[in-house]
Amino acid sequence: MPMDMKNHCTLLAQRALAASRAMLATTSAQRAAALRLIAQRLRESSVSLIAANAKDLQAGQTAGLAPAMLERLKLDEKGVAKIANSVSQIADQTDPVGQIIEGSVRPSGLRLQKVRVPLGVVLIIFESRPNVTSDAAALCIKSGNAAILRGGKEAAHSNAAIAEIVRSSLRDAGLNPDTVQLVDTPDRQAVTELLQLDSLIDLVIPRGGESLIRAVVEQSTIPVIKHYTGNCHVYVDDHADAKMALDICINSKTQRTGVCNAAETMLFHASTIDTGLMADVCKALLKSGVELRGCQRTLALLGKHDKLIAAIEEDWAAEYLDMICAVRVVDDIDAAIEHINRYGSRHTDAIVTSFLPHADRFVQRVDSANVFVNVSTRLSDGGEYGLGAEIGISTDKLHARGPMGAADLTTYKWVGYGDGVLRS
Amino acid sequence: MPMDMKNHCTLLAQRALAASRAMLATTSAQRAAALRLIAQRLRESSVSLIAANAKDLQAGQTAGLAPAMLERLKLDEKGVAKIANSVSQIADQTDPVGQIIEGSVRPSGLRLQKVRVPLGVVLIIFESRPNVTSDAAALCIKSGNAAILRGGKEAAHSNAAIAEIVRSSLRDAGLNPDTVQLVDTPDRQAVTELLQLDSLIDLVIPRGGESLIRAVVEQSTIPVIKHYTGNCHVYVDDHADAKMALDICINSKTQRTGVCNAAETMLFHASTIDTGLMADVCKALLKSGVELRGCQRTLALLGKHDKLIAAIEEDWAAEYLDMICAVRVVDDIDAAIEHINRYGSRHTDAIVTSFLPHADRFVQRVDSANVFVNVSTRLSDGGEYGLGAEIGISTDKLHARGPMGAADLTTYKWVGYGDGVLRS
Repeated sequence: MPMDMKNHCTLLAQRALAASRAMLATTSAQRAAALRLIAQRLRESSVSLIAANAKDLQAGQTAGLAPAMLERLKLDEKGVAKIANSVSQIADQTDPVGQIIEGSVRPSGLRLQKVRVPLGVVLIIFESRPNVTSDAAALCIKSGNAAILRGGKEAAHSNAAIAEIVRSSLRDAGLNPDTVQLVDTPDRQAVTELLQLDSLIDLVIPRGGESLIRAVVEQSTIPVIKHYTGNCHVYVDDHADAKMALDICINSKTQRTGVCNAAETMLFHASTIDTGLMADVCKALLKSGVELRGCQRTLALLGKHDKLIAAIEEDWAAEYLDMICAVRVVDDIDAAIEHINRYGSRHTDAIVTSFLPHADRFVQRVDSANVFVNVSTRLSDGGEYGLGAEIGISTDKLHARGPMGAADLTTYKWVGYGDGVLRS
Repeated sequence: MPMDMKNHCTLLAQRALAASRAMLATTSAQRAAALRLIAQRLRESSVSLIAANAKDLQAGQTAGLAPAMLERLKLDEKGVAKIANSVSQIADQTDPVGQIIEGSVRPSGLRLQKVRVPLGVVLIIFESRPNVTSDAAALCIKSGNAAILRGGKEAAHSNAAIAEIVRSSLRDAGLNPDTVQLVDTPDRQAVTELLQLDSLIDLVIPRGGESLIRAVVEQSTIPVIKHYTGNCHVYVDDHADAKMALDICINSKTQRTGVCNAAETMLFHASTIDTGLMADVCKALLKSGVELRGCQRTLALLGKHDKLIAAIEEDWAAEYLDMICAVRVVDDIDAAIEHINRYGSRHTDAIVTSFLPHADRFVQRVDSANVFVNVSTRLSDGGEYGLGAEIGISTDKLHARGPMGAADLTTYKWVGYGDGVLRS
């Protein structure tokens, strides 16, 4: 291990810690003003940002990146306006810092407040999309944290250009530019070193595919908030409204497929075979171009179809992120709940029902971050929840669960006031 | 690695997971009734519990345990009444499960609720005090979790007797007895195996010394909430009320010394040398039998004393847990804050001041779990905060910070209701 890389990373993290301590002394108005300046400068720097991005695109083409990857990497005039607007919106959000979560006067005379405060230093490791650089920086600034950003090497020029605008804006707004630092070496060893600095860094958020997240969890001695797969379900109950079931299944599966809150499995109560509802929904899915992987009863109901094949055990746990859907008949609501808790990924699961006891039972017993009644799984999203820009969607249960906004980058502090309160 | 131990632990954790799923279907009244039955049976079993404890005490004496250790291990009639009362009190506490933390109706028509729900399966690893068995079990039952308890081998008979009462009471109250399981082998390999079961266990809480906690953090792939040392400070400001300063310093240092919220360092503003306040406080500490380890200015002020020695760098970071106190003169409040943030353990730190801007500055900039103004550090305690029985005191920033009660054994779930809400 090169000693200089360890030193380099430690110094970087120490600068972040110093900046995070300085952030404790800033006001909400100062942080919002800095964010507005960043947004303005991003807009004004559209031409140079697009030029920096062009270098990444060229390098990506030379390296033979896939077209979808290049598309995600690309920053045009509209893209720059979008990232600037996102920063403006974060500036306008409610500031979580200083909120009093609860408070009371204790018998001892202790006047106790549980106050929301910044976490400290947050390390965000992400892949190729350059908008994460400005979004993550803005959310950390909003919530009074210092950010260490580690982007993918494919977006190195774009990220450096965005980070430089963020840092010079922080400086000109009177804040410490080290509030946001971009790791300035593509060497993977830097990440390994940073993940050991648990006395300087408070939280790691890996934003990317499962292999990135697993690698971070394996290496890190710092707490990690994970965003694993979404194997989301829609269960069509025996008391489902037919039109609602049809709309929700189609929307959950097809409105967008490559995202974690798209449904991957539909469960049907056996009675929907007799009513014809199951066949209607499945045919609509097939018609939309969805390939179905069905249980034996599904196959028996639908007969032969070139987009219908028999499901195997692995299908129940699969996150297709594609126009593919597993389909299974269950005998009652408890079998549906059992299936979801067994095979699901605890992300987002929905029931379609008009029968209140079944809605209650499903909500209480399905052990997932987002549990919906007569709502498409696609609604589990920070924007839809009104949290503002998302720093990620947690599949963990500790600290934050589901969509995470700026408030989830805070912790709390117990503040006690008294008039000479002693323990007796 | 013995294959049977891995299987044994996996089966144990799978039973816990099944029990935690069953707990989701229980009501608050059912859980409280089970707790009341446990308390009653503990009281009724006083004689047999004391007999089981006598076996541990005898084994401890044979093994040559220190008297302080034997004292902590001992369970007499009063001790049994105390652990039973603790369970009764937990039964009477407010139930955190089902609380709606926030809620709103979104523009889409989504009616969103953020609802408090149990974490799932909690593993608690603790040392010799048998009361932890019943306390931890009761807090987990209250908050709807399943508990896996791993106690110290010194208390094996006592823990087994308490756990058996808990389990039979759960059964008779109509709940799954596997809601509380005691690891039934003293083999250390069992802990190693359990700490790898991150798909079955949601949280680990080690309750014990620093070496236990570090060993758990090192091995565990499950999130750990840590309770490290308390290096707590009292800073006597230039605007301190003299009597309050004296009372708070004495109480923080001497009311009880072997606990994490006892003060270990006193910081004095330089002006308290001239006013005589610093000398008064230091003399009172010396008179109470406290050994002082002072900076150069402290030594110059107090002159020769057989309980006064020069502090070295290590003293600023020490957790004495004893009648010893580091003392330092600082030139202003910022130097005090700087000292605390540099050497402290982010546990509990207090300022004595009557000057509001200094109180505000201290509260805002000291980066600790508990920050007090004119309050003894000894007040940072779940009982004093009204949280009921404590499952621990977190020195982490993620999930829970400071004293942790039953509510900190919960997570939340986003519950969405709608009338066919779709994403457009």
